[in-house]
Amino acid sequence: MRITELSSERREELLSGLREKYEAFRSSGISLDMSRGNPPKEQLSLNSDILNAVTDPDDCISEDGTDCRNYGVPFGLKEARELFSQLIQVPADNIIIGGTSSLNLMYDTISRAVTHGLAGSPRPWGKEKHVKFVCPVPGYDRHYKILEHFGIEMITVPFTGHGPDMDIVEKIVADDASVKGMICVPVYSNYTGDVYSDETVKRLAGMQAKAPDFVVMYDDAYVVHDLYGVPAEIPSFFDECVRAGHPERPVIFASTSKMTFAGGGICCVSFGDENLELAKKVMAMQFITHDKINQLRHVRVLRDLKTVRERMDRFGSMLLPKFEAVEDTFEEFLGSYDIAEWSKPRGGYFICFRLRYGGAKRVVAMCADAGVKLTPAGAGFPYGVDPSDSYIRIAPTFPSVDDLKKAAELLSICSLISALENNTPLEV
Amino acid sequence: MRITELSSERREELLSGLREKYEAFRSSGISLDMSRGNPPKEQLSLNSDILNAVTDPDDCISEDGTDCRNYGVPFGLKEARELFSQLIQVPADNIIIGGTSSLNLMYDTISRAVTHGLAGSPRPWGKEKHVKFVCPVPGYDRHYKILEHFGIEMITVPFTGHGPDMDIVEKIVADDASVKGMICVPVYSNYTGDVYSDETVKRLAGMQAKAPDFVVMYDDAYVVHDLYGVPAEIPSFFDECVRAGHPERPVIFASTSKMTFAGGGICCVSFGDENLELAKKVMAMQFITHDKINQLRHVRVLRDLKTVRERMDRFGSMLLPKFEAVEDTFEEFLGSYDIAEWSKPRGGYFICFRLRYGGAKRVVAMCADAGVKLTPAGAGFPYGVDPSDSYIRIAPTFPSVDDLKKAAELLSICSLISALENNTPLEV
Repeated sequence: MRITELSSERREELLSGLREKYEAFRSSGISLDMSRGNPPKEQLSLNSDILNAVTDPDDCISEDGTDCRNYGVPFGLKEARELFSQLIQVPADNIIIGGTSSLNLMYDTISRAVTHGLAGSPRPWGKEKHVKFVCPVPGYDRHYKILEHFGIEMITVPFTGHGPDMDIVEKIVADDASVKGMICVPVYSNYTGDVYSDETVKRLAGMQAKAPDFVVMYDDAYVVHDLYGVPAEIPSFFDECVRAGHPERPVIFASTSKMTFAGGGICCVSFGDENLELAKKVMAMQFITHDKINQLRHVRVLRDLKTVRERMDRFGSMLLPKFEAVEDTFEEFLGSYDIAEWSKPRGGYFICFRLRYGGAKRVVAMCADAGVKLTPAGAGFPYGVDPSDSYIRIAPTFPSVDDLKKAAELLSICSLISALENNTPLEV
Repeated sequence: MRITELSSERREELLSGLREKYEAFRSSGISLDMSRGNPPKEQLSLNSDILNAVTDPDDCISEDGTDCRNYGVPFGLKEARELFSQLIQVPADNIIIGGTSSLNLMYDTISRAVTHGLAGSPRPWGKEKHVKFVCPVPGYDRHYKILEHFGIEMITVPFTGHGPDMDIVEKIVADDASVKGMICVPVYSNYTGDVYSDETVKRLAGMQAKAPDFVVMYDDAYVVHDLYGVPAEIPSFFDECVRAGHPERPVIFASTSKMTFAGGGICCVSFGDENLELAKKVMAMQFITHDKINQLRHVRVLRDLKTVRERMDRFGSMLLPKFEAVEDTFEEFLGSYDIAEWSKPRGGYFICFRLRYGGAKRVVAMCADAGVKLTPAGAGFPYGVDPSDSYIRIAPTFPSVDDLKKAAELLSICSLISALENNTPLEV
């Protein structure tokens, strides 16, 4: 039903009922935080294997005889690099293990580029007049904050359902030498849930870049985070880049934040050979070792891709009812109207909700006012500004199914109120 | 005995005997690495309490109810900040907890100053023509590598036995606005073992600096690492700075690397209020959390200063025989000659060995050739250059007492050979 085609009487009647429901929500005392993608408690409680993987101080020796309790091996245990190698499809020798946060490795990579440059940089990025990055939107707000912090201009590109619109990306990257990079989440993209198609990955690897030090910051945060037990099959971006003659292009990140503990996992970054050497040279100044005992805990439990997939399937089946609860509630309350669309992702941590009549800021504020905190409207865009004011990110992983149903109903009600009051669709 | 006063016959006779001993060492197949300050295995094996402090995933809640397994609390658990507060004499609210490596926090602090500046900076350090740091020497090579990496010029200042020569430091810092900082190890200084006196600390806090953003990077790496069970008493540098009207001056670091596991500890940095806010603003972009589970392990075991001191006394009594073995061997083989002096530290991780006839590079090379790897000569100086070529750092913590005796004997033999062959003291 197109709400623009409603009679004004019918619209008023609908609005009156919706406002009543909204007020009922407001006075119900609901209090729910769906703003960030946190693993749920019931999943975290299944991780006693990690906590008990290394309990004897004399059982802290890695496969090559390294005493993990002591200094040394700054770039990570071989077996930890081999584990991530299977997850992100990069040779283990090109991988460096970090601490808890892959975001920190991203920040460091950009920071290093700014102060010292990357492979092929004519000069440090900080000495360039302009440095620009391609950003598929809506995307991950923390990526944008790092880029903004270093004064990097962001050029947005829309999604197609199988990654960013590559016609646009190719043109931007080929035409402008100040475009030094792109930042993206290739599998179950945050927000949209896009899984990059084979063609997208190959074009990303093969496209011509005017900047000699162009990199793709490839955040594989959800690479094994399937909801339906069906792995997202995607070519190795690293291999495709090597094959296309762009071996220094891929900078690939991953972490176990949502496999074991967000508050106590391990992470990695990988580079092409030359960028790897540059990174190692600087990292050797930054630290003597990361937490090798925690690396040992993780490899002893997660072991290999097969074991990780089994674990993630278990977690996926805990998350799936949550995603379905939100999707079904939207369908129930919004299915017969033309005011919104939402993603039905096959994995990852988010549902992307789009208001065809705009008003995202208002809707998020209304939900907050009634006790449900959502990711701020606009967060998926550089500088926090969504030009169409239409995207809202739903993070359904942490709350209970009952709470999610309520929150999705509230969001539906607010969206309807906003659209009916506004009554002007973004596109005809 | 002054070797310059030896008759040439006696010198040749001595040399001949020493060369014979050296060759015997060379063919004995000794192989020993004393280049870095690693905790010994027997100490690491006492840390099962840390590994078993958190083994139940539902027992990961901090005092304020934070679920340590999940994201959040980026700047560290309150109880972890309170623990370090007691160790480094800084208010808990001014402390930020990091991952395994305090060196990483130092790198980050300098990197942030270079790209964005610190409290009071007229502009980012990277936009200044010259940035200089005061470096008491001999000091910690990893400090100098970070400064060198960012193009920061280093001005060396000698030690007095109770810290750097403050007359010189005060003059440099008061006269030159490009002197933005000083980097130092105030307790059991690496190499010399100096413990900064009350006067040194107060003058460091109170001295006038020409640069409005002058900071003292105060690496409290060995603050509770006493060898004789006698705590190093030193005023709170943080409090002294506040009292002197220089609240943004102190940037204080510490870690548990040598209290629990070098390969799995926690660390901290602290700032004055304004620098703290600046740091938090940027760190909020760098990571969502550090490893809070490991923070929990540490606070549950280390608890408070008293408990830490008991633990460190236990470790100190394991290390003391090692230090004494080296000192006694030097006394035995070098005590009757005028060719060397060595520190007898009350704590920390190193013995500072100084050759009065120079030749440190040659002596280190001779030892390496005979199977004993020492810290490279010159490492205690910026750019790896010791102008007098006289300092050698001994790291006696890791090897066994027997190995240490052999290594110290070899070093004595090499030092005597070098001095007798050279026969020219550095000072008259």
